Amino acid sequence: MEKTKIILDCDPGHDDAVAIILAGKNPAIDLLGITVVSGNQTLDKTVRNALNVTQYLGIDVPVFAGCSEPMVRKKITAGDIHGESGLDGPVFPPLERKAEPEHAVNFIIRTLMESDGDITVVTTGPMTNLAMAMRMEPKIVSKIKRIVLMGGAYTNGNVTPAAEFNIVADAEAAYVCFTSNVPITMVGLDVTRLALCYPEIVDRMGKIENRASKLFVDLMRHFCKSQKETFGWEGGPLHDPVTIAYLIDPSVLEVKPMNVQIDIRSTQSYGRTNCDRFDYLHLPHTADVATDLDVERFWNIIEENIRLYD
Amino acid sequence: MEKTKIILDCDPGHDDAVAIILAGKNPAIDLLGITVVSGNQTLDKTVRNALNVTQYLGIDVPVFAGCSEPMVRKKITAGDIHGESGLDGPVFPPLERKAEPEHAVNFIIRTLMESDGDITVVTTGPMTNLAMAMRMEPKIVSKIKRIVLMGGAYTNGNVTPAAEFNIVADAEAAYVCFTSNVPITMVGLDVTRLALCYPEIVDRMGKIENRASKLFVDLMRHFCKSQKETFGWEGGPLHDPVTIAYLIDPSVLEVKPMNVQIDIRSTQSYGRTNCDRFDYLHLPHTADVATDLDVERFWNIIEENIRLYD
Amino acid sequence: MEKTKIILDCDPGHDDAVAIILAGKNPAIDLLGITVVSGNQTLDKTVRNALNVTQYLGIDVPVFAGCSEPMVRKKITAGDIHGESGLDGPVFPPLERKAEPEHAVNFIIRTLMESDGDITVVTTGPMTNLAMAMRMEPKIVSKIKRIVLMGGAYTNGNVTPAAEFNIVADAEAAYVCFTSNVPITMVGLDVTRLALCYPEIVDRMGKIENRASKLFVDLMRHFCKSQKETFGWEGGPLHDPVTIAYLIDPSVLEVKPMNVQIDIRSTQSYGRTNCDRFDYLHLPHTADVATDLDVERFWNIIEENIRLYD
Amino acid sequence: MEKTKIILDCDPGHDDAVAIILAGKNPAIDLLGITVVSGNQTLDKTVRNALNVTQYLGIDVPVFAGCSEPMVRKKITAGDIHGESGLDGPVFPPLERKAEPEHAVNFIIRTLMESDGDITVVTTGPMTNLAMAMRMEPKIVSKIKRIVLMGGAYTNGNVTPAAEFNIVADAEAAYVCFTSNVPITMVGLDVTRLALCYPEIVDRMGKIENRASKLFVDLMRHFCKSQKETFGWEGGPLHDPVTIAYLIDPSVLEVKPMNVQIDIRSTQSYGRTNCDRFDYLHLPHTADVATDLDVERFWNIIEENIRLYD
Repeated sequence: MEKTKIILDCDPGHDDAVAIILAGKNPAIDLLGITVVSGNQTLDKTVRNALNVTQYLGIDVPVFAGCSEPMVRKKITAGDIHGESGLDGPVFPPLERKAEPEHAVNFIIRTLMESDGDITVVTTGPMTNLAMAMRMEPKIVSKIKRIVLMGGAYTNGNVTPAAEFNIVADAEAAYVCFTSNVPITMVGLDVTRLALCYPEIVDRMGKIENRASKLFVDLMRHFCKSQKETFGWEGGPLHDPVTIAYLIDPSVLEVKPMNVQIDIRSTQSYGRTNCDRFDYLHLPHTADVATDLDVERFWNIIEENIRLYD
Repeated sequence: MEKTKIILDCDPGHDDAVAIILAGKNPAIDLLGITVVSGNQTLDKTVRNALNVTQYLGIDVPVFAGCSEPMVRKKITAGDIHGESGLDGPVFPPLERKAEPEHAVNFIIRTLMESDGDITVVTTGPMTNLAMAMRMEPKIVSKIKRIVLMGGAYTNGNVTPAAEFNIVADAEAAYVCFTSNVPITMVGLDVTRLALCYPEIVDRMGKIENRASKLFVDLMRHFCKSQKETFGWEGGPLHDPVTIAYLIDPSVLEVKPMNVQIDIRSTQSYGRTNCDRFDYLHLPHTADVATDLDVERFWNIIEENIRLYD
Repeated sequence: MEKTKIILDCDPGHDDAVAIILAGKNPAIDLLGITVVSGNQTLDKTVRNALNVTQYLGIDVPVFAGCSEPMVRKKITAGDIHGESGLDGPVFPPLERKAEPEHAVNFIIRTLMESDGDITVVTTGPMTNLAMAMRMEPKIVSKIKRIVLMGGAYTNGNVTPAAEFNIVADAEAAYVCFTSNVPITMVGLDVTRLALCYPEIVDRMGKIENRASKLFVDLMRHFCKSQKETFGWEGGPLHDPVTIAYLIDPSVLEVKPMNVQIDIRSTQSYGRTNCDRFDYLHLPHTADVATDLDVERFWNIIEENIRLYD
Repeated sequence: MEKTKIILDCDPGHDDAVAIILAGKNPAIDLLGITVVSGNQTLDKTVRNALNVTQYLGIDVPVFAGCSEPMVRKKITAGDIHGESGLDGPVFPPLERKAEPEHAVNFIIRTLMESDGDITVVTTGPMTNLAMAMRMEPKIVSKIKRIVLMGGAYTNGNVTPAAEFNIVADAEAAYVCFTSNVPITMVGLDVTRLALCYPEIVDRMGKIENRASKLFVDLMRHFCKSQKETFGWEGGPLHDPVTIAYLIDPSVLEVKPMNVQIDIRSTQSYGRTNCDRFDYLHLPHTADVATDLDVERFWNIIEENIRLYD
């Protein structure tokens, strides 16, 4: 079987960390590099978190620090959900790994330009790094096999009534990616809200008893707690790993091609992903949008991939 | 029991016609007048439809023609759903009723100014007439007991990915109403999409065998057909009557106070009703928004009210 | 000579008052009515001012109160320039005149519908009344001979860097008028800023020594003072009368047909009149825009018309 | 005298070429590098033009190719003014110079990070390169001594009624720069429209009879011709060199501190530089905006600097 080559662009973040668990050891995935962006927390913290997770799990993949600010708008973070460190919960051993000296944007450009057009870019944070790379070097656009992103919603948002965090945090970056003509799969809140991590799930994964299982439990205990405190919800939605689960087993998602437009001009609806699910506007389809999640299969994928660790 | 005094502002339209059936004979409703607006079809047609429905059913209530254009934007209609006449399906006897000479906007102003502040304005079309009345005579604002509207959605729209027909057809009018500080109940697509009129429902109402039942059947056969042709859906959602059903029996809806803002500045998200269902923005609640419909109870109300006719 | 029939829609306001002086006695003007709108001050004040000016000058023309709120946006006034009363400066005798009972919007509709299409509507305030009339009764649109407005600017504004007061105070109303296809002449700040009323002008008009001359002097002393205090300018620009001066003697203005668009979607540039003076966009011409003022001729017109009073 | 260290970011372009003439030999200017952006023409052409001009004039400064696309919006160019090559008119000898291998954005970041905070960045094209550098490495922001840009207008634009070319071509980039808190001097159309290059000026510079003088004449003959064909104007405005002239002799401009905001949300007024010249909005001053040009002095500076060449 040919491996799916990916660059994982993320802002860990509890659910990003689980995405790293999935991508780190799966035999179907060739993880070329982890590029980090400001998002769930500031860049220094999200980079530290990416290094801690990969060091702790023994994932030997280079980590690159990227943009610490969105392309145009002012920075927002999600400290209310992910805590002061951006990854509150687990306690990591002393950090010895270091980020690579190359800027994430330059790494993305270089790696894509040297590739045969067979690399999928997965973004689980604001799309700043990828959009900046596209603008620094437009030639990479034709080199990207596909973008798979966690972000957006065709129903309602989770930061404003109109918009989801990863998009609203840098809607201009999302606009650049969604207008690039690169094949794109959008995994939005519409399906990730179904990936609710209830205490039973935490217990199930805890029983595996390896490093990854311990990390998962430490992450999810905190994540579920902050979701409950902030929104009053029992189980927290595990947004980001759905992207990697989909690359491991596409049958986990139902997707539908739609016309998708990012609103960057409205104040009130800034960052809305207007997905024309029922083709009201009779416009060309520009993205595959996830419309349903096979929840049981999703948790099975999570379990199987946690079991790949020692 | 004290009757609920209402002005019904509508653009018939199949589902408006069913709203008229509900409001026309119910002992809990005192229908002071029907004001008509351009919407599902052009004004001349929607006025004709309101006259035809009230004449056919023997509902003795004055009908007033209102605005034939939205406040600011260009007119749109919904001929694809409601047909050439705006009420395709039923065949009415020759029309003898006439609209009153007074403009609907002036009727609304006069009636409210002469009232004790006990009138509810129900809008089941674009909110042009009511908003125009508020701007012609701002003193009416404190005279309106409540606005109950069919319109909007906190999830996704039905004309664009962002917006619902009644709002997008005159978002400025909706903006005027939603910023007026009048108590407001928004019955949006989020619940009216649950009022799906399947063939079984049409059969059930048809068995009542009176004028209203015949009208319901003639309306719904066409409505369901056009919904199927346009969107591929089996049952058509019966949006507008949910407003009157709610006034007859408030327990038919679950409502939640939310901050609601109408986007009138975006091109792409124009007409979106940004309802902050989970209080992300910590802003004052400005409307009661329907979040669930008791579907069984709704159809019971429809049946009971159809039975009130000869 | 055939008289130009006009309805003067205004928000007095010092410069509106001078427009009334011009329109009140000129043999070339048939002033059918004065309709009043909120603008330079609240409606109760601008109506009072219109009544005071016409009573004081013995101008026998009906005055109609119109809209006290803009069509969509929140009301703004210009108390900093026109003072607490909206017409600070002159002291008027006790007011005996009353506004007509008919709403200005209904008067505009009725008068236009009964006309032969020979009425020019002059607006020297926010365009709310005229736009509301167009939306209440779209049939009037084809009855209006021409709109001549004071408002807008193709250079920079006087309330925001982008926008002029009369437009920004109700940009949606301006949008309605500018998209109505009625022939329209826009007299913007670009030329009215040339009508600077320096102390020499006040002295010159003062020497005429009649009621109108006294009123002019009392108005302008205050107006120039508040312009100086607010902006540091010596002479205050006498915006509104340029419209009537143009109807009396078209040679006072140079006008150029342009494509004009009103920005109602921007927050920052809300109310900008984007006039394509150099046809950059190759769009149809939608308004005649004043590009130069014959200043000497303008003051001569002012003087000649002041002399028509006792 | 201490030299002013500058990076010149440009999109030659006829007037950019004259800016290079000014910056290339003046003893008060230390030209560290020329960075090139897409603008007046596509990037490959503007880079070629920068290389041709520096080779022809013997200016020994490295040239770096930058962004070929704006940050967010679709690319526009100005081929109608600057011709197919972006620098139609002069015929250059075979090109031997090459652009440096480093990306302009990386050069800007590296040079600023290694500096003592004493570098002025002059932009005479769309501000893409500088804004991208600020987002790739936010630490450069505190290292920039000042931005001096040709762009914008507080009156009216030259591409749309609202906007000037360099800003409208990448308004998001301008927004990033104007919100960066770096001291900024905006040289807009309001003053560069006074730098009209009439035939007399071309003759005057032609009499100097050196390489730079010949280049100036070849450039301006074409530039004035295309201005005349496109807009009907006699003399073409020599926008870009005003920035360098100002650094050579600040007395050539009158500047006033203003609050300046870039409209990136409007469709119609996109790219407008809303400069609050009269402090209507009582907001903090964010840029020094040029309000007048000493035209005679400007042409003297041009002449003096042309004379510095062989």
